[in-house]
Amino acid sequence: MIAKPSIPKGTRDFLPEETAKRNYIFDTIKSVYSLHGFQQIETPAMENLSTLMGKYGEEGDKLLFKILNSGDYMSALTDDELLTKNSVKLTSKLSEKGLRYDLTVPFARFVVQYRDQIKFPFRRFQIQPVWRADRPQKGRYREFYQCDADIVGSDSLLNELELVQIIDEVFARFGMRVAVKLNNRKILAGIAEIIGENDKIVDITVAIDKLDKIGIDNVNAELREKGLSDTAVAKLQPILAMSGANKDKINELAQILKDSEIGMKGVNEMQTLFSLIENAGIQCQVDADLTLARGLNYYTGTIIEVKALDFEIGSITGGGRYDNLTGVFGVDGLSGVGISFGADRIYDVLNGLNLYPESITCQTKVIFLNLGEKEVAFALPVVKSLRQAGVAVELYADAAKFKKQMGYANDRKIPYVAIIGESELQSGVIALKDMTTGEQTNLTAEELIAKLQ
Amino acid sequence: MIAKPSIPKGTRDFLPEETAKRNYIFDTIKSVYSLHGFQQIETPAMENLSTLMGKYGEEGDKLLFKILNSGDYMSALTDDELLTKNSVKLTSKLSEKGLRYDLTVPFARFVVQYRDQIKFPFRRFQIQPVWRADRPQKGRYREFYQCDADIVGSDSLLNELELVQIIDEVFARFGMRVAVKLNNRKILAGIAEIIGENDKIVDITVAIDKLDKIGIDNVNAELREKGLSDTAVAKLQPILAMSGANKDKINELAQILKDSEIGMKGVNEMQTLFSLIENAGIQCQVDADLTLARGLNYYTGTIIEVKALDFEIGSITGGGRYDNLTGVFGVDGLSGVGISFGADRIYDVLNGLNLYPESITCQTKVIFLNLGEKEVAFALPVVKSLRQAGVAVELYADAAKFKKQMGYANDRKIPYVAIIGESELQSGVIALKDMTTGEQTNLTAEELIAKLQ
Repeated sequence: MIAKPSIPKGTRDFLPEETAKRNYIFDTIKSVYSLHGFQQIETPAMENLSTLMGKYGEEGDKLLFKILNSGDYMSALTDDELLTKNSVKLTSKLSEKGLRYDLTVPFARFVVQYRDQIKFPFRRFQIQPVWRADRPQKGRYREFYQCDADIVGSDSLLNELELVQIIDEVFARFGMRVAVKLNNRKILAGIAEIIGENDKIVDITVAIDKLDKIGIDNVNAELREKGLSDTAVAKLQPILAMSGANKDKINELAQILKDSEIGMKGVNEMQTLFSLIENAGIQCQVDADLTLARGLNYYTGTIIEVKALDFEIGSITGGGRYDNLTGVFGVDGLSGVGISFGADRIYDVLNGLNLYPESITCQTKVIFLNLGEKEVAFALPVVKSLRQAGVAVELYADAAKFKKQMGYANDRKIPYVAIIGESELQSGVIALKDMTTGEQTNLTAEELIAKLQ
Repeated sequence: MIAKPSIPKGTRDFLPEETAKRNYIFDTIKSVYSLHGFQQIETPAMENLSTLMGKYGEEGDKLLFKILNSGDYMSALTDDELLTKNSVKLTSKLSEKGLRYDLTVPFARFVVQYRDQIKFPFRRFQIQPVWRADRPQKGRYREFYQCDADIVGSDSLLNELELVQIIDEVFARFGMRVAVKLNNRKILAGIAEIIGENDKIVDITVAIDKLDKIGIDNVNAELREKGLSDTAVAKLQPILAMSGANKDKINELAQILKDSEIGMKGVNEMQTLFSLIENAGIQCQVDADLTLARGLNYYTGTIIEVKALDFEIGSITGGGRYDNLTGVFGVDGLSGVGISFGADRIYDVLNGLNLYPESITCQTKVIFLNLGEKEVAFALPVVKSLRQAGVAVELYADAAKFKKQMGYANDRKIPYVAIIGESELQSGVIALKDMTTGEQTNLTAEELIAKLQ
């Protein structure tokens, strides 16, 4: 007895229905990216470890999947090295390639490597799997797809607008109500500056985020616990008290941050972006949200996050602006802005809200039963004509029992069954059964094609 | 100075134009598979090594990319084990996962794992990359895509027909002339049987293959060198002398193999398949070809190979029937038949014959220049309407010099440029420049949308 085979934990197989649903998500995102003139690229699953190491922090280095060198890899190690059994140190001798951990670092490497062939501003998108040796848990996988779009080589806020337009269009196509949350790293830096706590940006945003839940007194207590001085906490009060519409909030911020150069830069960017958004007729809800602290270690301007309004789940899309994408590969001065759709979470939301179009799960429209050789010979040209007319058709391959063939059609949820038996062969018509209504009609080949087309 | 980044040898980046061409290939294959009712699945890039090892021969085991275990993997090894420095033996302690080497073994694993959920006959297709630690060389990569379709759980030759139909349709869509070569493993077994050399199938097919090039005398000499007896070589002569149309060849074979049960089985299968092919109106050339020795270690019936007629390159698609797909995972009795399109070679042929549709390389139809804030504000709703009409549009994000913006449009080969300057702003019209003819016309927003739609 051989053990039932399985797959590595944290990875997934996708059965036909799941694959069809996932394709619907990828295809929708892809077509909106294309509508905005983004060009698709692909990079290899494996990158040199020298490209990947040190780009995701110490924890990230550990979470990289590393490829064991081929051939007699052990001969590269001395006895002394081996006996240290130092897994971290020996990795560099046993492995020189790793699996892609995200799409951003390979993209930065790509931009540097092909910078002579690329036309800037470069608008690229990339939809490929990435791998992380995270501890698997509900909703977190070791292999998952990222769907990134970035614009590199332009500082204009029209790029941020474009990403909001893309988000608006993608979720409109999905039929999902969402809120786009916008923040700006420079505003957070300005706040930290005016209260004199430059290194406490994260603590401050986390505290602001809890305001609704725990109230102002608890927030202030928590800030003091984190080491903020009484003066700093006091200076933060007008910000914690801010409310109202996006414009009101931004105007208040302009007042509060008037003495911080970087803060005012952020305020101006936010103002410009909101006026562009108004101008461009964005349909979905857009909020200025100071609690967005996403990617503070690399974003330098706008920060973007998208929340589903009708389903409880984390951020379903995120992105932002970074000032120096390629510096780590020796090319400075290329700034960019990008977003990434979280396909796995979007999948869960569409499932939860039952928003998949019905058409995507069964593509086969009609199956021809197989009642014998002559009947099949009669069916073949009809099947061919149907396919030429763009109708997805199956012909049951074995002359199995009628009931078995009908059972297959039923299990596969194929909407129509075409039956050519002896009497149909004589009269030259085909019996077409509508599997939803149970109705059966006799049609000539031409009528059948006209009906199913 | 940081070294210019690179990617592992044998892997590739795909720039926008290459990606667009590759997508054209994948999308075409995919839509033909769907038209025939095949359902797409996906499996993880990583499989357990226990799933992969021993399935591709000893050489295949070496060519698997293995993933180094995470965490403190060294602690699993004793000092004695380490000091053996036996790379082959230690691999099983350092690694428990490997990268997918083909799509067939993961598919077999999938069929066994989900057999309770699958409706048989199961028609699945799968388009995913595979990885092999082969020595990289021209046209051979360490990461490449396979595009497989298989039908599992049916012995009918209608399945073979269906695969030939798919090949016919795919290459018709590509505008490529091809020849489908068909053979049958049982015929080869029959030949080996009647000449009394059961273990020399491969040598015999290789020799037959050389007939045109080196002539009958040299072929016979080579067969004797390979250890065939004089009697065997003499018995092979009628087969070497076979010629004529497919039907004639098969009829001759029926004569020659009449005393071999397995041989006659193969002849009958071939006859049935060719009569189905005639019946179904296959357009491309189809040849019976005894020299096909593809996959003799796993194919048990029909063998399929496709050659491009107008371009010198190896087989561009191949497949065949196997009697026991899943036996290796403990489930016997599931036979199947499948094909795999060689996307990389098809890419080369389409390039060589210049067969790509022009439309695929630049999707952006029009770019709006950016001549200032007011002009952009005027452009935004027009851009939105165009995209709603399905036209791919870019808006140049920076108010850069006119020449620079035109240069970008030109480099990107965008066919139309929309210009909104001060005079256009006053008159409410948009100047549209046709980049092919150089012609420029003034249009209202409505006229522009109507023209580009």
